[in-house]
Amino acid sequence: MVGGGQLARMSAAPAAALGIDFRVLAASPDESAAQVVADTRIGRHDDPSDVIEFARGCDVITFDHEHVPPAILEQVEALGVAVRPGPSALFHAQDKAHMRRALSGFPAPRWDVVTGVQDAIDFAHDVGYPIILKTSRGGYDGRGVWRIESAADLAAAMSVPLPLGAEWLVEECVSFVRELAAQVARSPSGQSVAYPVVQTTQINGICAEVIAPAGDLADDRAVEAQRLALDIAASLGVTGMLAVEMFDTGSEILVNELAMRPHNSGHWSIEGAVTSQFENHLRAVLDLPLGAPTPIAPYSVMVNILGGDVPNLYSAFRHVMARDPRLHVHLYGKEVRPGRKVGHVTAVGTDLPALLDRARHAADYFMGVIDE
Amino acid sequence: MVGGGQLARMSAAPAAALGIDFRVLAASPDESAAQVVADTRIGRHDDPSDVIEFARGCDVITFDHEHVPPAILEQVEALGVAVRPGPSALFHAQDKAHMRRALSGFPAPRWDVVTGVQDAIDFAHDVGYPIILKTSRGGYDGRGVWRIESAADLAAAMSVPLPLGAEWLVEECVSFVRELAAQVARSPSGQSVAYPVVQTTQINGICAEVIAPAGDLADDRAVEAQRLALDIAASLGVTGMLAVEMFDTGSEILVNELAMRPHNSGHWSIEGAVTSQFENHLRAVLDLPLGAPTPIAPYSVMVNILGGDVPNLYSAFRHVMARDPRLHVHLYGKEVRPGRKVGHVTAVGTDLPALLDRARHAADYFMGVIDE
Repeated sequence: MVGGGQLARMSAAPAAALGIDFRVLAASPDESAAQVVADTRIGRHDDPSDVIEFARGCDVITFDHEHVPPAILEQVEALGVAVRPGPSALFHAQDKAHMRRALSGFPAPRWDVVTGVQDAIDFAHDVGYPIILKTSRGGYDGRGVWRIESAADLAAAMSVPLPLGAEWLVEECVSFVRELAAQVARSPSGQSVAYPVVQTTQINGICAEVIAPAGDLADDRAVEAQRLALDIAASLGVTGMLAVEMFDTGSEILVNELAMRPHNSGHWSIEGAVTSQFENHLRAVLDLPLGAPTPIAPYSVMVNILGGDVPNLYSAFRHVMARDPRLHVHLYGKEVRPGRKVGHVTAVGTDLPALLDRARHAADYFMGVIDE
Repeated sequence: MVGGGQLARMSAAPAAALGIDFRVLAASPDESAAQVVADTRIGRHDDPSDVIEFARGCDVITFDHEHVPPAILEQVEALGVAVRPGPSALFHAQDKAHMRRALSGFPAPRWDVVTGVQDAIDFAHDVGYPIILKTSRGGYDGRGVWRIESAADLAAAMSVPLPLGAEWLVEECVSFVRELAAQVARSPSGQSVAYPVVQTTQINGICAEVIAPAGDLADDRAVEAQRLALDIAASLGVTGMLAVEMFDTGSEILVNELAMRPHNSGHWSIEGAVTSQFENHLRAVLDLPLGAPTPIAPYSVMVNILGGDVPNLYSAFRHVMARDPRLHVHLYGKEVRPGRKVGHVTAVGTDLPALLDRARHAADYFMGVIDE
């Protein structure tokens, strides 16, 4: 797995359980996954020789992020090492303009690719302010995305240089009643499984909370969202996990963004599903039969722990664990910095309001928002 | 954790989840845990300098086996490193004669420590053949244990030299209707939790199958077994997981053996309980509040995969996973040798006969007993 973040760290457990030799390419020995994975190699994901050296001897390489340049992946494939998802599929998750073009047959907000401020103003004139401005590449966790209220906003935001190879993407600002995410796993043989559709809450562009399955989602609407994700996976030739982030406008479901890897919206599945997204990602990229994505309880709630005022997360353990012996805690071994994802908690059970209370309380305590 | 076997390997996942720095002392880099744990040190568990070097910088050391000599552990404690379970508690799991003496107030088979064949013959005369002969130290997975049918058997078995410091222990051969195991976690603060009592099936002294909770066990009998384990843990000052293996004679429950670590009888808890035995062992030895040992479903069935005719366990994955997408597979990364524990499978659900069928089928397929 290229990338040493928490997704690689959380992939290590199912790799060990399945007896799969698991190697990670991390940028430094103190990255989240490098702390726990025995076969960690240190190198840059955007350096061809580092990635190729890393890939030698692997059967398959896969990713904990979308940032490996396609040209490097083609070189890896030329070595005879399978790359999953493949470079041409992955490119849809790397470039949002490319994704919008490829998914033109799927429901989406109105969008356009613009080359200058005047084009963007014209787009905004058609759909009405506010609009969403994105760089097509290089964004994550809310970076590279701006909510634009006026022509002046546009001029200011577009005055910064675009990342290499990126385009300016403008999108209608959808009035949604909530955000959903649909995750599927798909293997090279074409087997697919769909996880329950979840409701996600983003704060400042960062996933804050996930409810699995989304409450009060009509069965036909849930099936529609799952089918959308399955169709996108097949249409783009995705292998591994695909997360489709969606807007639920109340009357329709629109595709927002894609991730081709385990995703924050599926962390609940570690304890909340028969087979976690991390195990199914490994199974899928290895072309093994997929595990059941079935939930083990009526609801799971995941709340992210973001960096706050408490540098030592361990100091919260006594309180959090004593208060809630059924809670699941995941810390990523990352240095606490304000707003950074440093862990998450999951509560699994039947009483959704109680699960939300428990998970939010624990996350707030870890973050120093509350102290009792 | 001293010892690089599968128990250390399976402890790595909850250590990573909780953000606990996890170091393993393995005898070689190809041991089960050494393959997956980043901070693996190579050394001998019975070499004082290796263990002390390993322990430096740790807050707590604990074990994946019982074989570290107490004198070494006392040296580690003298460094200011907590040893959990402590040497004096652990000694009860290291020496079965010591355990029998210390547990004289608890129900047990009739037993004696003998110094020669004639004493053993006298004991057998009192309780009747067959009897069980054990070396008090150094046995595991059926080694160091003999079923004795006659005085001639005794003379033959006792002609081999005893392990260093060991005594000959003779025990009544109990007619049991089944074997049970009760696991508890106990922290230095004295908090304890009890897992459901499980039924275990041993074949040639090796755990083959576990049903959690034991079927058809009356509530009062289950509570009696849990209380027995809790009382033993408190009485011996155990910290961490304690497994008490028991004989159910139909009319009473007798203590067979102890293990002070995660134990084969608790592997079901990885997927079958809210908090696994591996996580609770870590929480207990770190004196953190313990997690709920509650099952997540009516039944879990665990069946061990023993080394058979198929050297490459991975070759079974397509069949096993395609046949049963809800099954949980754990392979330990150990070379396949006949009769060696190389993995296990777990099925969790409500229909006990179906769970048994599924888990046994998968284990048999891994072992090459069946090929379809």
